[in-house]
Amino acid sequence: MADSTRDLLAQLTVEEKASLTSGADFWNTKAVERVGVPSMMLTDGPHGLRKQAGAGDHLGINDSVPATCFPPAVGLGSSFDPELAQRMGRAIGTEAAIEDVAVVLGPGINIKRSPLCGRNFEYFSEDPLVAGWMGGALVDGIQSRGVGSSLKHFAVNNQESDRMRVSADVDPRPLHEIYLRGFAHVVRQSQPWTVMCSYNKINGVYASENPWLLTDTLRTAWGFQGLVVSDWGAVNERVAALVAGLDLEMPSSGGVTDAEIVAAICDGTLDPAVLDTAAERNLELVAKAQQRPPVAGPLDVDAHHALAREVAGRSIVLLKNDDALLPLAPDSSVALIGEFARTPRFQGGGSSHINPTKVDSALDEFVAQLGDRVRFAPGFTFDGADAALFEEAVALAGQQDVAVLFVGLPAAEESEGFDREHLNLPAAQLDLVDAVLAVNPNTVVVLSNGAVVTLPFAESVPAIVEAWLLGQAGGSATVDVLTGAVNPSGRLTETIPLRLEDTPAFGNFPGALGHVRYGEGIYVGYRWYDQRELDVAYPFGHGLSYTEFSYEPVTAETDETGQVIVTVRVTNVGDRTGREVVQAYVGLDESIVDRAPRELKAFVSVEIPAGMTCEIPLMIHRDDLAYWDVRADRFAVEGGTYRIDVGSSSRNIAQSTTVEVTGDELRLPLTMESSLGEVMAHPVAGPIVAEQLAAMQSDSSDDAAGGFLDDPMVTQLLGSFPIGRLTSFPGVGIEADQVRALIAVANQGLDA
Amino acid sequence: MADSTRDLLAQLTVEEKASLTSGADFWNTKAVERVGVPSMMLTDGPHGLRKQAGAGDHLGINDSVPATCFPPAVGLGSSFDPELAQRMGRAIGTEAAIEDVAVVLGPGINIKRSPLCGRNFEYFSEDPLVAGWMGGALVDGIQSRGVGSSLKHFAVNNQESDRMRVSADVDPRPLHEIYLRGFAHVVRQSQPWTVMCSYNKINGVYASENPWLLTDTLRTAWGFQGLVVSDWGAVNERVAALVAGLDLEMPSSGGVTDAEIVAAICDGTLDPAVLDTAAERNLELVAKAQQRPPVAGPLDVDAHHALAREVAGRSIVLLKNDDALLPLAPDSSVALIGEFARTPRFQGGGSSHINPTKVDSALDEFVAQLGDRVRFAPGFTFDGADAALFEEAVALAGQQDVAVLFVGLPAAEESEGFDREHLNLPAAQLDLVDAVLAVNPNTVVVLSNGAVVTLPFAESVPAIVEAWLLGQAGGSATVDVLTGAVNPSGRLTETIPLRLEDTPAFGNFPGALGHVRYGEGIYVGYRWYDQRELDVAYPFGHGLSYTEFSYEPVTAETDETGQVIVTVRVTNVGDRTGREVVQAYVGLDESIVDRAPRELKAFVSVEIPAGMTCEIPLMIHRDDLAYWDVRADRFAVEGGTYRIDVGSSSRNIAQSTTVEVTGDELRLPLTMESSLGEVMAHPVAGPIVAEQLAAMQSDSSDDAAGGFLDDPMVTQLLGSFPIGRLTSFPGVGIEADQVRALIAVANQGLDA
Repeated sequence: MADSTRDLLAQLTVEEKASLTSGADFWNTKAVERVGVPSMMLTDGPHGLRKQAGAGDHLGINDSVPATCFPPAVGLGSSFDPELAQRMGRAIGTEAAIEDVAVVLGPGINIKRSPLCGRNFEYFSEDPLVAGWMGGALVDGIQSRGVGSSLKHFAVNNQESDRMRVSADVDPRPLHEIYLRGFAHVVRQSQPWTVMCSYNKINGVYASENPWLLTDTLRTAWGFQGLVVSDWGAVNERVAALVAGLDLEMPSSGGVTDAEIVAAICDGTLDPAVLDTAAERNLELVAKAQQRPPVAGPLDVDAHHALAREVAGRSIVLLKNDDALLPLAPDSSVALIGEFARTPRFQGGGSSHINPTKVDSALDEFVAQLGDRVRFAPGFTFDGADAALFEEAVALAGQQDVAVLFVGLPAAEESEGFDREHLNLPAAQLDLVDAVLAVNPNTVVVLSNGAVVTLPFAESVPAIVEAWLLGQAGGSATVDVLTGAVNPSGRLTETIPLRLEDTPAFGNFPGALGHVRYGEGIYVGYRWYDQRELDVAYPFGHGLSYTEFSYEPVTAETDETGQVIVTVRVTNVGDRTGREVVQAYVGLDESIVDRAPRELKAFVSVEIPAGMTCEIPLMIHRDDLAYWDVRADRFAVEGGTYRIDVGSSSRNIAQSTTVEVTGDELRLPLTMESSLGEVMAHPVAGPIVAEQLAAMQSDSSDDAAGGFLDDPMVTQLLGSFPIGRLTSFPGVGIEADQVRALIAVANQGLDA
Repeated sequence: MADSTRDLLAQLTVEEKASLTSGADFWNTKAVERVGVPSMMLTDGPHGLRKQAGAGDHLGINDSVPATCFPPAVGLGSSFDPELAQRMGRAIGTEAAIEDVAVVLGPGINIKRSPLCGRNFEYFSEDPLVAGWMGGALVDGIQSRGVGSSLKHFAVNNQESDRMRVSADVDPRPLHEIYLRGFAHVVRQSQPWTVMCSYNKINGVYASENPWLLTDTLRTAWGFQGLVVSDWGAVNERVAALVAGLDLEMPSSGGVTDAEIVAAICDGTLDPAVLDTAAERNLELVAKAQQRPPVAGPLDVDAHHALAREVAGRSIVLLKNDDALLPLAPDSSVALIGEFARTPRFQGGGSSHINPTKVDSALDEFVAQLGDRVRFAPGFTFDGADAALFEEAVALAGQQDVAVLFVGLPAAEESEGFDREHLNLPAAQLDLVDAVLAVNPNTVVVLSNGAVVTLPFAESVPAIVEAWLLGQAGGSATVDVLTGAVNPSGRLTETIPLRLEDTPAFGNFPGALGHVRYGEGIYVGYRWYDQRELDVAYPFGHGLSYTEFSYEPVTAETDETGQVIVTVRVTNVGDRTGREVVQAYVGLDESIVDRAPRELKAFVSVEIPAGMTCEIPLMIHRDDLAYWDVRADRFAVEGGTYRIDVGSSSRNIAQSTTVEVTGDELRLPLTMESSLGEVMAHPVAGPIVAEQLAAMQSDSSDDAAGGFLDDPMVTQLLGSFPIGRLTSFPGVGIEADQVRALIAVANQGLDA
C-alpha cells in the first residue's frame, strides 16, 4: 500500500470506508469529499466504450455517447493475434481517457461452452489458451493508456439462462484446466486493475461470496493485486461477499449494504480489518485512475474507424473457397443479396451495445468500389420471409456473374440475457440460399452472426465467408476480403458442428431448476469432437487464405526452464502475401488421467510474403502442459513423451514430432486406503512388500497363507484392494500394525 | 421385533452382540452357542449356487459343490419376463435349501452404465425398470423357498476399475431416477432379506458408511425391513459403518472390528442402541433362516437342467434374419464353426462362477439332432488366430448349405475384477466371419459374450443370433433356436452401439485418480442415443421372432389411483406361435426439466398363437412417471400431456397416443432469491406484483421509476432477476420490506 493510501485510510470513519465499497449510482463510485477522495466512473466495454450520457437510468441501458464500435470478441478472437488485440485495446483506452472513464468493463474471456450461449459474441473461444492470450492482450492495451480494465465474468459464467442464480456444477479438472486457466493467465501476465465477479454460483456458492474463488485462487494462488468488483447486481449477501474478497459492489445499493457492513462491525460479526482491506483496494484504484496521463480530445473518429476496419478484416474467416471463386474477379458483375448487406448487424445486444461514431455497410462499400457492376436485392426482412423480395433476389442472382448472399442471425435471435435454443439460420434465409444457388452456381455466402450456426449448405455452396459481428467498419472490411484488398487470415476459435445434438454440452445445457452440470468435463469444444471422433462442419482453428502455405518438418526441445520450444519453417507457396496462423497442439497418449487427443498450447499469426519462408518459433509454457491433480489439489506436469502436432487447424496437422518432458515430483502419502497395486509400485514400500510376500509364499504349502497369490485372478483382484482392508480378511495373515509400520516408513520425509 | 428376538437380545453381552455383526469365516456368521443362536451361511449367487466345500479359502474362490448354472442376468434379463425369473429364483432357492444356505448373494441389479463394465454379465439392463422388475422377480422366487436373497450392489457400483475405492460422482437426478430406482422397486415390492452395500463411494462417501444411503433412503424412504450386509471386504471404518446402518460385515475380521465396536461403546463414542439395532437385525435374519421349510435332497439335476435350458432359450435375441435364413431348413447341411460351439462360454468369471452339474455344447446337440448333416471346425482358439484352423473352417464353410459360426469373447476378455477397454471381438474371429461369408452367403453368426460387442459385420451377415452367456444348458438352447424348436423372443436390455465413441459414458469411464463423473446424467443407454439422435447397431428392446406381430391403435387412461392403463391389441400375423415383448415408453416434450425423448415404463412378454389376437394391458405406475425434483429433494410427478409410445423396441414404435396426467402439488416457498419471473407466475404473489407494477408505471412519466418496464429487453433481463437483488438497484423503487411482506403472504400455510 502506498503511503498516501495508508494515510487516507487512517483518516476515514468506518461509515466512510463502507461507503467506498459500493457505487454512488449506476456507473460511479462514491467520493469522500471530506478527505479529497473523488468519485470515478466504471463503464461498459468490452469492444468499445458505452458511457451513458447524464446520470444513467435505472438499468444502464439508455443511449450512450458515441464511441468506436470495434469488433466484438467473436471477431477479434478469430485473428488469433494478441498484438492486434493490444492495438485495439490501446484505442479503447484512449477513448476512455478522453471521456474520463477510470475502468472499462472488459474483456470477457468466458469459455464458449455451448454455441447456444447468447453472450458468446462477447467471448473469445472454446479454448482457454486463445481466450487468455487474446484477453490479456486487450487488457495490456487498455491499461497502457492509464485506464483500468475489468476482467470478466469471474467465473464459470457460460450461459445467460438463469444466469443470476444458476449453479455451475463443475469438477476440479475442467474448472481449473478449462474455465479458470485463461483467467489465471491474464491475471499473472497483465494484472488487470479489476476483476469482475460473475452472477452465477459455482458448485452451489455465489461467485460474489466465494472466498475460495476471490481470495484463495485469485489472490493467493495467482497473485492478483487489484480490486474485485461485482457484476452489476451480483451481490447476494453484502457482508459475506466482503469477507470473501468482493471489494466493490456495483451499482449503488442506495446505502443499504454499506449500513449492513457498519452494523456487522458494530455487532462484532465482521472483522474491521476486512473492511480496511476492501476500502484500501478502492482507494488504490482511485489513486491509479488519478495518475492517468491526460489525453486531449476530441476523438479522432476516422483514425479509430480505420483501425476498426483493419481489425474487422483480420477477423473474417474464409471457410470455403472452391475453385478460387474468391476474391471476386475484377470485372465480374455482382448480385448483392440480403438485408444484412444494407443494414449490417455489427454488434450484439445487451450491456456491450455501443452507440457507434459511424457505420459502414457492405452495400455502400460495394457501390463505391464496383459502381453499377453491383446490384442489390434485400431478399428477406429481419422479421422473416417476404415472397416478393425473395423472387426479386433470385431473379437478380440469375442475371449477374456472381451472387454474394449475406445471411445471418437477426438481433432478436441472439443477445445478452437469453440463450438460443437451436443453431439454425432463419428458414427464409436458408430457402433463399438454395434458390440463389440453383440459378447461379457462383454463389458466395457471407455470414453475420455472433456465434456459430449450422450450415446445411456447406456441401453445395462453393464459397462461404464467416463474417461474424465485426463492429462499425465490418461492412467495408467484408468487401475488402471479398475483393481481395485484404487476404483473409481469420481462424475459427470455435468448432462449427454439424448438428446441435453433436455439441458437448447438449442435454446438459442450460440446466434446470437452478443447476447446470458440466457433464462433458474437460471435453469442451474441439476436445470433445476429437475425443469422440465426430465429424464437424469446420474444425477449430480452420480458415483459408487466398494463398497457400507448406510446412517443413517440425522440431521440439525443452529449454533449461522447462519450456518446450517448437520450431517449424513455413513457406508461402502462393502468389500473394498472406497470413498463416501456425498452431501447436500437444497430446499425451499414455496418461494417468483422461486427456483430449490434442490441446492447443501455442499459436502465432505471421505474415509471409509470396514465395518466402519463415522460421517460426512457438513457445509452449511448461505451466500449460499441466493437468489438475485431484489428489494433490494442484496443477502438475506429468512426465512422458508428448506429441507435438503443428498445422493450420486442429484437424489439418501438417507436421508432428515428440518431446520428452520430465514430470513434476508429486509424492503422495501412502495410506490404509492405498491399493496393494499402489503399494507394490511405491519406491520405498514396494520392495519391502515384495520380500514379505515371497517369504509368505515359501513358508506355507498349505492354504493358511500366501499360496493363493500364485493365482493370476487373485493377483488381479487383490491389486485393487486397499491395504487396510486386507488386514481384516480371514487368513490373509497381514496385521494392521505391520501395514501401519510400512506406511510410516514409506511416508518418511512427507509432511503429515 | 418378535418376542423371541427381543428375549434373545436381552440375554446377550455387548461382546456377543458385537460378535454378531461380522462373519465367523468367509461364508458363515457367528453362532452364540451360549443362548442357542446358530451360525448361518451366506453364499454366492446370483444365477446359481456357489457354495464352497469345506471351510473356504481366504478369498472364497476355490471350487464349490456342483449346482445348476442358470443363465446369468445378461441372458435372463433379455427374456423381459419376470414370471420366468421368478421360476428360476425358486429353483435357486431350492438348491440353496438343500445345501442349508440361508442367504443367496444376489440378484445384482446395477445399471449397465457403460458396456465396458466387466461385470455387466451379472446385471440386467441399462434401464432401471427392467433391472428392478427382473431383479424383484428373482428375489420373489428365491425367497419363496424360505431362503434369503441379497440385493446388490447397493449402490452406484457400475464399474470394476478401482471398485474398492472409486467415488461415483453422480447428480441427484440420475442417482434417483436411474441408479436407485430399481433398488427402490425391489425393496418395496419384494423385501429382500438382505441388501448388500457396495465397495465404492458415492459422491465421496463409502456406501458402507453412508447413513443417507443405508438408513435415510433404504429404510426411512423405502421401508426396508431386512439386514444390510457388506460386500466382502467393503467395510472401511467399522464403527462408522455400524452407525450408518451396516448390520453385518463380511467376511470375518478375525474379531478385530468386533473389538472396535465394543471399545467405542466403552468410551462412549457409540450409542449402545446402535449396536442393539444391528444385533437385532442379525438375530431376526437367523430366525427367518431357521424357519425355512425342510427341502429333501438330492437335487433333481435333470429337472433343473431342463429349466436352465428353457430360460436360456428365452434369453436368446435374434438380431437379424434376412430372407428367413433361420430357422435352419430341415434338410440343410451345416458347417458348424467356432470353438465356442464345442467349448461353450456359458458364465462369467469371478464370484458368480459356478461348478455346473453338467454342460451342454452346441456341437453335441447339433450332432444329436442333425447327425452327419453337421460338420464342425473350431476355426480359432481362445488364445487367438490359428492359420490351419482358419483354412480348415473356411474350406468347410464352402462345402455346406449353411455356415453357423460361433464367435465371442474369450473368458480372459471379460470378468468381475476388471473392465474392458474396447468393444471389439478378437480380430481373428472377425477375419473368420469375413472369410466364411465370402465362401458361403448363408452364414449365421452366433455370439457368446457377457456384454455387448460392436458388430462390424452387421450389414453383411444375413443372420445374427445374440446368445450371450446362457448358463450350462446354453449350448442346447441355442440349437433349439437355430433349428426352430424354440421361437426366439429375447430382447435387448442394452443398446448395441455402432462405436465405443458413441457410448454415453465415453470419456467419463472409468474415471481416474479416485473419481468417476457420471457426466451423462440421466441420459444412460437408449436415453442417450435417442436424445442425441445417434444411429445404433441395434436399439434397446430389439429382437426378432420367426413370426410377426401387428399392433392396433393404442389407448391410455388414468385410473382412480393415478396409474396409467395402456391397452393395445396385438395380432400374431405369422404362421407359428411366438412371443412378443410389448413395450410402453413415455415422453413429456414440454417439461420443466430435461428428459429423455422416451423412457420404458411398462412391458409384458406374451405368447400369441399364430393368427390370434391378444388384448394386452400395460400398467404404468404413477411413481414411475416421477422425476426427482432437486428443489424439493423428492420425487414429483409433473402435470401435462404425456406421449405413450407402444411397440416392439425403443425405435420400432407401432402405435402412439397421449394421456393427461395431473401433477403433484409441489408448492415451493418464495424467497428473496426467487426470480421476478417466478414471482409473477406465483398464484398468490403474481397478481399483487402485477398491480403494483401497473401503479408504478402509471405514476411516473419521467424516468424515476416504472417506465422502463415498457422495454421488452428490460422485461427479459428483469425476469431472471432475484427479487431480493432488485431492492438494491438504484431507482427501481422496490423496498426490501415490501418484498419481505410479499413473501410472507405468498408463503402462508407452508412450513418454515
